[in-house]
Amino acid sequence: MEDKVQIQDAIKVQGEVVRKLKSEKASKEQIDEEVAKLLELKARLGGDDGKHQFVLKTAKGTRDYNPKQMAIREKVFNTIISCFKRHGAETIDTPVFELKETLTGKYGEDSKLIYDLKDQGGELLSLRYDLTVPFARYLAMNKITNIKRYHIAKVYRRDNPAMTRGRYREFYQCDFDIAGQYDAMIPDAECLKIVYEILHELDLGDFRIKVNDRRILDGMFAVCGVPDDKFRTICSTVDKLDKMSWEDVKKEMVNEKGLSEQAADQIGEYVSMQGGMDLAEHLLQDQKMSQSKQACAGLSDIKLLFSYLQLFQVTDKVVFDLSLARGLDYYTGVIYEAVLTQAGVASVTTEAQNGAPGSTEESVSVGSVAGGGRYDGLVGMFDPKGRKVPCVGVSIGIERIFSIMEQKAEVSAEKVRTTEVQVMVASAQKNLLEERLKLTAELWNAGIKAEVMYKKNPKLLSQLQHCEESGIPLVAILGEQELKDGVVKLRVVATREEADISRADLIDEIRRRTSDP
Amino acid sequence: MEDKVQIQDAIKVQGEVVRKLKSEKASKEQIDEEVAKLLELKARLGGDDGKHQFVLKTAKGTRDYNPKQMAIREKVFNTIISCFKRHGAETIDTPVFELKETLTGKYGEDSKLIYDLKDQGGELLSLRYDLTVPFARYLAMNKITNIKRYHIAKVYRRDNPAMTRGRYREFYQCDFDIAGQYDAMIPDAECLKIVYEILHELDLGDFRIKVNDRRILDGMFAVCGVPDDKFRTICSTVDKLDKMSWEDVKKEMVNEKGLSEQAADQIGEYVSMQGGMDLAEHLLQDQKMSQSKQACAGLSDIKLLFSYLQLFQVTDKVVFDLSLARGLDYYTGVIYEAVLTQAGVASVTTEAQNGAPGSTEESVSVGSVAGGGRYDGLVGMFDPKGRKVPCVGVSIGIERIFSIMEQKAEVSAEKVRTTEVQVMVASAQKNLLEERLKLTAELWNAGIKAEVMYKKNPKLLSQLQHCEESGIPLVAILGEQELKDGVVKLRVVATREEADISRADLIDEIRRRTSDP
Repeated sequence: MEDKVQIQDAIKVQGEVVRKLKSEKASKEQIDEEVAKLLELKARLGGDDGKHQFVLKTAKGTRDYNPKQMAIREKVFNTIISCFKRHGAETIDTPVFELKETLTGKYGEDSKLIYDLKDQGGELLSLRYDLTVPFARYLAMNKITNIKRYHIAKVYRRDNPAMTRGRYREFYQCDFDIAGQYDAMIPDAECLKIVYEILHELDLGDFRIKVNDRRILDGMFAVCGVPDDKFRTICSTVDKLDKMSWEDVKKEMVNEKGLSEQAADQIGEYVSMQGGMDLAEHLLQDQKMSQSKQACAGLSDIKLLFSYLQLFQVTDKVVFDLSLARGLDYYTGVIYEAVLTQAGVASVTTEAQNGAPGSTEESVSVGSVAGGGRYDGLVGMFDPKGRKVPCVGVSIGIERIFSIMEQKAEVSAEKVRTTEVQVMVASAQKNLLEERLKLTAELWNAGIKAEVMYKKNPKLLSQLQHCEESGIPLVAILGEQELKDGVVKLRVVATREEADISRADLIDEIRRRTSDP
Repeated sequence: MEDKVQIQDAIKVQGEVVRKLKSEKASKEQIDEEVAKLLELKARLGGDDGKHQFVLKTAKGTRDYNPKQMAIREKVFNTIISCFKRHGAETIDTPVFELKETLTGKYGEDSKLIYDLKDQGGELLSLRYDLTVPFARYLAMNKITNIKRYHIAKVYRRDNPAMTRGRYREFYQCDFDIAGQYDAMIPDAECLKIVYEILHELDLGDFRIKVNDRRILDGMFAVCGVPDDKFRTICSTVDKLDKMSWEDVKKEMVNEKGLSEQAADQIGEYVSMQGGMDLAEHLLQDQKMSQSKQACAGLSDIKLLFSYLQLFQVTDKVVFDLSLARGLDYYTGVIYEAVLTQAGVASVTTEAQNGAPGSTEESVSVGSVAGGGRYDGLVGMFDPKGRKVPCVGVSIGIERIFSIMEQKAEVSAEKVRTTEVQVMVASAQKNLLEERLKLTAELWNAGIKAEVMYKKNPKLLSQLQHCEESGIPLVAILGEQELKDGVVKLRVVATREEADISRADLIDEIRRRTSDP
């Protein structure tokens, strides 16, 4: 038994912590976490009867999926997996944790967000941070030089969660990657085609896919006079252009990172440029840019990429955007990011409530839903002899898509079914449990999705109600008379129509009435 | 830079550890782990060039799944999920880690096998040990009193791995549970029906489902004179009867656990009993057993259970077996376990090699592949007011099934396809990359699963070879002449037959030829 006085003291201290956070207007997550600690302490105090009180919650930044959410998730996954399979991808799986050293040195500053496992003897382990590093480890370990694979799994980041906007500590990634030595830009173009297909099919509203190249960024920094050792840090400042104004970005470059005003202004000119193949053409002629061999290599590849994207008929959504600068260290060539350009959820809600589609709300980016690029050096980091396997891939950020779909489903009139049950076996009379079970087993054995109430004598009304609530389209009703006649009364829940069907025809009749179009 | 001399010393010590383990004939896993540490040290020493050498492996007791293994896994999952859906189950998902205290006090001695996360500030977390406790937490947290759900996900146990026999530290569980206050034994019977259907459909050879009841075990112990405080420990000894002879079990009871010889002998009589409804009937008349109210309640329920199993037509595989005693603390009523009764893999191999199906090898149990039971108290442990939600469920142990299926696939002549590609877009001539890409995009847009080589001018032979290796049934061949004629040469890989198909008909023709029967 713990010391009561000690706990009471702890409760006082913790209460102060909560009050202070509230007065400071701390984030909801932070306050919730401290309140949870307080409740736990109070529960322990109340636990005199020997019964331990649990804090009933999931870990910070994580969530359960209820059946409705799972139904939506399954739909989204099916769309994505179909696309990956259509493009001929195999799939692999890797463990949720890796040796800690496998992840070391791959994520730069973000390494602090890695979850480590407790040292309980044996190896030091960490939860995977993405699927790309385990993929590279897998290729090197199995000496695979050629593969097109997808991998859908959860990854873990001790980030500051913002769950309402779809940012979690445990979240799914859907990765598609092509590894192998191939002719330039062909696999890269296929990755963009895949992003296009998936966002189009998920029907989330309009979108843009921004494209750039690590070599163009580096070349641009060089010709603008950025010192070599500042490329990465200036790059990460440029990366903020989607959230900050150019003025603020420039201030950070000059005041915080010590770049000359002149260099910053030159960068500013370039990063405001957007276009297509013509812009790449134009920059290849640019007096300054053309001085960098790296930049020219990148620009030529962008031109080639756009020529393939034209064949794939996806250039209407793809923009060559010099401000795109993805953070991760391991990219070596083309990079891309897809953003939804509609207010998304908000506008969906408004439309549904006002019945005014095509509202004039300003188009606002709801953030990145997919991203990727070429990383030709990562596998070599794992190979004892440093043998390289060129790779390019894309990762679909599924949580934000789930958020949008869930909110869409909420405002939609259509009910989300969480089971696929075709028929409920019911009866209006008593003492027919055995007959109901027998018929249900017959249906199961024929592959029909069927349910029966786990009661000896359920009321017909409650059986019918269950059908309406869970969207079961048919009821097979048994009664003394039906049993005598060798028939079943088949009722359509929606229309309340009933018809006697002979037992011999029942299975075919159910199949016929519930077959997908 | 680390101190070289220090590392060299550490290498010497570690070398000794490995030698000692080998001389002691320690387990392969143990030796491998220590060898890995040794290699890591050596790699660090060799790392003078500033290049860190990685130990290329997955964490102990875990595995990657390659595309072939994934194809098998997908097949097994599809069978299991179809069955769960046929029985009207919804699905949920929970995070891979829970608050540590959520898992505390649920697993008895096995708690030492729980993986904890490192304390990096914030909450104390552990990886889930099974799906049942998170399910109970989910029900209590959301105040759900009625649900039929399945959950397929990985769980984590710091157990001694025996990977060749399908025992891992990260492994899948496929759980189906029915929560709610219903009439006795109806949901319990459905769980057994589900096990029957799944094992039957997976076609793993003959199997048995053993059934018993926690109340019968407790009643039996009581009437045999086992002191109340020894029920659990004697129960766990009985649980070893599938691996140890009765003589050894008795020895453990008497010598280690201090049970009287007389009590042990009486238990021995009971636990040798196997049967069906008749045995339950017989034991209800048993002079001793009938003295225990608990036992009688359990026996009556076993009788009722068998009457439902008869309606479900599954009694041919179900045995009422008084020696079945599952370990977990939380069971309160009926318990069951399914075992494959054929040598499984071994006999499969033999059959395939000798061409002698139905070999006369003795039937050997390859261990449990499914298990479960009724746990009416677990949800109440999470509810602040202790409100109970009766539950019964079953968990399919999928890893052992994967092992068997994988080895079956290896000895089988049939090739496992890892993609579903229907057609490869190829050309025999040079400079047709653009035309190939255009046609491929047309096929993708029509929903056809298509591949194209990422080379400007691939050889026809290598394109055809790729089809044969990965089982792609069709090749769409483009050439100057075909382009001029507005046709595509469609080649059947297996027969080498070729036919010119007009571009307008191509998609329908591919669909027709690759439609699943």
